[in-house]
Amino acid sequence: MELMLKAVENIPLIQKGDDLADLIFKRADLKDNDIIVIASTVVSKSLGLTFYLSDLVPGAEAKRIASLNNKDPAFVQAVLEESLEVFVESPFMLVRNKNHHVCINAGIDNSNVGGGRLLKLPCNPDGCAAKIGQKLEELTQKKISVIITDTNGRAFKEGQTNVAIGLYKIKALRTWIGEKDLFGYVLEISEEAVVDEIAGAANLLMGEAANGYPVVIVRGLNLYTQETAGIREFYRKAEDDIIIQGLLELKNQKN
Amino acid sequence: MELMLKAVENIPLIQKGDDLADLIFKRADLKDNDIIVIASTVVSKSLGLTFYLSDLVPGAEAKRIASLNNKDPAFVQAVLEESLEVFVESPFMLVRNKNHHVCINAGIDNSNVGGGRLLKLPCNPDGCAAKIGQKLEELTQKKISVIITDTNGRAFKEGQTNVAIGLYKIKALRTWIGEKDLFGYVLEISEEAVVDEIAGAANLLMGEAANGYPVVIVRGLNLYTQETAGIREFYRKAEDDIIIQGLLELKNQKN
Repeated sequence: MELMLKAVENIPLIQKGDDLADLIFKRADLKDNDIIVIASTVVSKSLGLTFYLSDLVPGAEAKRIASLNNKDPAFVQAVLEESLEVFVESPFMLVRNKNHHVCINAGIDNSNVGGGRLLKLPCNPDGCAAKIGQKLEELTQKKISVIITDTNGRAFKEGQTNVAIGLYKIKALRTWIGEKDLFGYVLEISEEAVVDEIAGAANLLMGEAANGYPVVIVRGLNLYTQETAGIREFYRKAEDDIIIQGLLELKNQKN
Repeated sequence: MELMLKAVENIPLIQKGDDLADLIFKRADLKDNDIIVIASTVVSKSLGLTFYLSDLVPGAEAKRIASLNNKDPAFVQAVLEESLEVFVESPFMLVRNKNHHVCINAGIDNSNVGGGRLLKLPCNPDGCAAKIGQKLEELTQKKISVIITDTNGRAFKEGQTNVAIGLYKIKALRTWIGEKDLFGYVLEISEEAVVDEIAGAANLLMGEAANGYPVVIVRGLNLYTQETAGIREFYRKAEDDIIIQGLLELKNQKN
């Protein structure tokens, strides 16, 4: 069994209005079952999701949180506008963003943008993945899956990895439940977060700095599905998540 | 840029005393800078780390926790004996194991073991990785890195992924701090958890069920280091970890 990952070369700096599917199609010889992993930064840039802090007017809540975490109230306002719920206010902001993804600062990024601008995550990454995937399937006449990724920190450990935030024609989880183990026992609890594993693997080629590659092709897996696939099934409900309960308890004590 | 992952075929069922380096060497044509990813289950089996619950005598603490989480007190005793600290007691046990790895049930596993036995994680996975890596470097005369992995759940999201728990000649984190971004700005906070990304990527080939592959070769990265590399630098200190503080707060409220 083999798996191959290949960075797409010579993707230009992405501007608002660029057609990512077309840019990828012209630079890659895609095959059936290829999974195209795309950094959310280029998706956001193609959608023109850049903004200036000076255009935001911080409200009372943004000012309150900014006084706790020493951030610019306008930046806190930007984070709040992208968030459904705030789990940690200080020393950093950990939120559930509008697409239910739990991340620092709602994923607002200031690297690789330029001109003092900030960049938001796409508000519907599944929709973005579908748009790119459908066009790639039309152009290539192949079965193509798409994963849109974001860079995230993790619980308990230093360092960031890439994770999936938007999906097209690939399921978030591969289930081993009901499969038999080496000795014939039925596995009970195993669901593999394949799309995060693929996102992380792609990050090994993407890099973070100026010589980065925002698009990686993953070849050799058999995970294409015609079923509707979306990222939402991935996120644990707050009431089932003891980590969120602990974080909210700390937040309530502080306030 | 390309990355290739290849499962090592025909690894037999591992027994106590088996020489994993020798088994891998005979089945793989290794090259300089190859990273050998090995599931901890086969490392534990080669070390004979299986046990029977009937051999354990649960103490008062094990009985107390078992009464909360409806587990066998002997199983709770086994988890406690492998743990430095318990962050969650019920409905499941989340602990820091003796090697500082935060995981459910101290990583004690009952799948793919057979005979009603359970399997513990190696107590010094860096040491195990070094032993296998040194022998592979001797046998091949190549520069070889080793990552030993365990399957783990994650915060906020359903599903498990493989993570690194032991390292040889590869650093846990790849730093982008000080590198310049596309627009010349210096990146400030980017450290990439490359060994977890590699562990997760390998899991895409490993699988969980009877047709699994416990050893995967990763080729195409340039992460070999002569420096001493260990997994401990990876784990965030409890006092810096707001998630652990939240979990301990909930635990204290219950007790």
